[in-house]
Amino acid sequence: MSKPTPLSGFPEFLPAQRVVEQHVVTTLAATFELHGFANVETRAVEPMDQLLRKGETSKEVYVLRRLQEEDTSRDKGIGLHFDLTVPFARYVLENAGKLEFPFRRYQIQKVWRGERPQEGRFREFLQADIDIVGRDELPFHHDIEVTRVMLDALGKLADPDSIGLPGFRLQVNNRKLIQGFYLGIGATDVDEVMRLVDKLDKLSPEQVASQLVAEAGLTPEQAEQCLALAAIRSIDDSFVKEVRALGVDHPLLDEGLDELAQLLRGTVGLATDKVRIEADLSIARGLDYYTGTVFETRLDGYESLGSICSGGRYDALASDGRTTYPGVGISLGVSRVLVPLIQRGVVTGDRSVPSAVLVALADEDSRPRADEVATALRARGIPCEVAPSAAKFGKQIRHADRRGIPYVWFTSVDTDGPAADSITHEVKDIRSGNQVPADPATWEPPAGDLRPTIKVSTSSTNETETVQ
Amino acid sequence: MSKPTPLSGFPEFLPAQRVVEQHVVTTLAATFELHGFANVETRAVEPMDQLLRKGETSKEVYVLRRLQEEDTSRDKGIGLHFDLTVPFARYVLENAGKLEFPFRRYQIQKVWRGERPQEGRFREFLQADIDIVGRDELPFHHDIEVTRVMLDALGKLADPDSIGLPGFRLQVNNRKLIQGFYLGIGATDVDEVMRLVDKLDKLSPEQVASQLVAEAGLTPEQAEQCLALAAIRSIDDSFVKEVRALGVDHPLLDEGLDELAQLLRGTVGLATDKVRIEADLSIARGLDYYTGTVFETRLDGYESLGSICSGGRYDALASDGRTTYPGVGISLGVSRVLVPLIQRGVVTGDRSVPSAVLVALADEDSRPRADEVATALRARGIPCEVAPSAAKFGKQIRHADRRGIPYVWFTSVDTDGPAADSITHEVKDIRSGNQVPADPATWEPPAGDLRPTIKVSTSSTNETETVQ
Repeated sequence: MSKPTPLSGFPEFLPAQRVVEQHVVTTLAATFELHGFANVETRAVEPMDQLLRKGETSKEVYVLRRLQEEDTSRDKGIGLHFDLTVPFARYVLENAGKLEFPFRRYQIQKVWRGERPQEGRFREFLQADIDIVGRDELPFHHDIEVTRVMLDALGKLADPDSIGLPGFRLQVNNRKLIQGFYLGIGATDVDEVMRLVDKLDKLSPEQVASQLVAEAGLTPEQAEQCLALAAIRSIDDSFVKEVRALGVDHPLLDEGLDELAQLLRGTVGLATDKVRIEADLSIARGLDYYTGTVFETRLDGYESLGSICSGGRYDALASDGRTTYPGVGISLGVSRVLVPLIQRGVVTGDRSVPSAVLVALADEDSRPRADEVATALRARGIPCEVAPSAAKFGKQIRHADRRGIPYVWFTSVDTDGPAADSITHEVKDIRSGNQVPADPATWEPPAGDLRPTIKVSTSSTNETETVQ
Repeated sequence: MSKPTPLSGFPEFLPAQRVVEQHVVTTLAATFELHGFANVETRAVEPMDQLLRKGETSKEVYVLRRLQEEDTSRDKGIGLHFDLTVPFARYVLENAGKLEFPFRRYQIQKVWRGERPQEGRFREFLQADIDIVGRDELPFHHDIEVTRVMLDALGKLADPDSIGLPGFRLQVNNRKLIQGFYLGIGATDVDEVMRLVDKLDKLSPEQVASQLVAEAGLTPEQAEQCLALAAIRSIDDSFVKEVRALGVDHPLLDEGLDELAQLLRGTVGLATDKVRIEADLSIARGLDYYTGTVFETRLDGYESLGSICSGGRYDALASDGRTTYPGVGISLGVSRVLVPLIQRGVVTGDRSVPSAVLVALADEDSRPRADEVATALRARGIPCEVAPSAAKFGKQIRHADRRGIPYVWFTSVDTDGPAADSITHEVKDIRSGNQVPADPATWEPPAGDLRPTIKVSTSSTNETETVQ
């Protein structure tokens, strides 16, 4: 077999890079669990009729066929899930009798889309979703709750003492607010207005204004009002006054303003330098099926990636005809954030192996003694490995160095003299060259050396700093 | 949408059941890392020509097709991986220049096979693989190493103080030993003899003997010798003497006997009551491509599942024509072990949520104060959730009880008297009913209550005991 080439759109990491993804997944899971979210994994496949239920052909579903299947027409078949929302909605309906509501779950899994690969878009990628789903009803305070949870999680990802990713800007809006506003100015095709306003991240305000007139039947004055609304931003509830100043009235607008203001007030004090939250009245999530709160998130310095963490409120996440399950949730595109950062070398692990210690080998016969040292270290939670061969010590130290292993352990047996057969242990920090006597039953590396850590290169200066 | 029904062969867990799988995966990952194994994840798909390279049509590959793809004949396409060995071999070749050898990796991922679903067989299942791969050569001590690592991992899964699964019996053999033996007795079609002897777990010795005569061209005496070899078992290296007593000589037999004896000696002291290791000279892994050590594992009380943890030595795990990468590894069928145990209720989590505490709510207006309590607890690593509504306290306690949350936190504000506006905190252990004053900045639950634990029901007595 000749050397294989990567498959476009299916990113994979080298071991030191995978360390970053592991840290991120572990941090997200721990944060979600602190907030009481239970973990769920769903199968990778769903029936095709579920995957295409909302006419979602834009998601480019991968259809599965068994190699030895002759008759492919028997049923509509199965395909790989393209998000974690469709499978979760199905899981809730399938297990509704066995779940307790409101049900908080997080789910961190790969999803697949047969899209044309491009920057920030992949055919296989990792998503981390949180959702809260109720039976029949789900009070609005849960919208505030998921926002707080995701702010907490993003804060840990951006914290230089944790992962040290770039900062995040969480943008929130409310569908009731914008739909109520459009109704209030007299628009008739509200969905079309929303779809066109959603193009503001690609088109100029003038272009959107003329499309609003040409395609949504608005007057130029109405179009101006829509653009004025979409231009409003605030980091607190002061957007309410700005919207009111536009002089539009509608009960749905009132409801949306109240909800969004509650959400901003409910997250006071949680924003940091690196994780901000703002009301952005241009956010609409036009193609999705949200009914209230909507979220988008930008990664600082990587705005061209688009939203890397999105979601909102669904008044009917799932329904079996008799019972409706409203939900609110956010989905973080883990691969969408990490693949560009890792591929550009902005973040990486400082080791390609988990080992903190390489136990050196004086000769092959002493391997059992080296294994004993390793077993003693592992019993106290210190990852280590024994040298693969009894090469010269200089070569064994280089072996550790190439993998980023900080310590090499030496064991020697006195062969004669008064201390014959006594064993001497020493451990060398190969970064400083410092070598000291050590006891395998008690020695511990500093906590910062126990596990691989993440190296973040500060892109502005190209300096590299190491954080835990 | 009506209530969906499960897809046969695609097992999914309820949240309390998923706790068990999470514990198992976390335990395996931590153990593998203690032994210096780096984590790798490969994409779910491989090119079809790779998947079918060894004529592996028996694995029933799932072929992928993009829904909107018109011309499906352009290339041979891609399919879902059916194990983690084929993708790992490809990953090693693709990244050989960037990896350090010997390369130890673990990989815990789903794999897919379009087989007819039956007990212990699934279409989607989780595997946990460890492999060590060398460049050009890989000394035999790595065979001993992977055995030690898997014994350590299985020991933790079976340990009543960890997960508490049933015990495991790891059976080892060596292909050189049996092939050398068959050559030594004068067999000409060694592979066919191995394939037939491998049927001993399904057929009687008499049936296998007559097939050896009829299909592999052995004399009845040669067939008897093969069965005598396959009947040998030992928990130490005493099997060597038993094989020698059969009076067969061959250099390859000598090599195999020496390797297998080394392996048994190299694991002395690691076996426990619940995890045993034995030389079992009937093990052949007939359909796989091993060249030395071979492993199989039985789960105590679930022998009908067959081997739940298998592997061995490949002298050519991968090759690009110029360089060969020998490997040795073992693959644990996580789903194959857990799905039957979980479905029968032998193991489950004791909570359906991670929360150790439910912060109760006196009225909806006090939600911000309850959020503050929750934030203080989370800051010290205590998972918790705030009650969804200010229902009667009895109802809030039942809410906690139904989820298995052990503690309910009550906050009250004195509205008059000398202590007006002072806040009183109390926490109730709802199992004992014991309620005590507590400070959100310092209170901690006992360590055993912090996270969900695993409940193991002792099948013989149907008693249920809770372990961490």
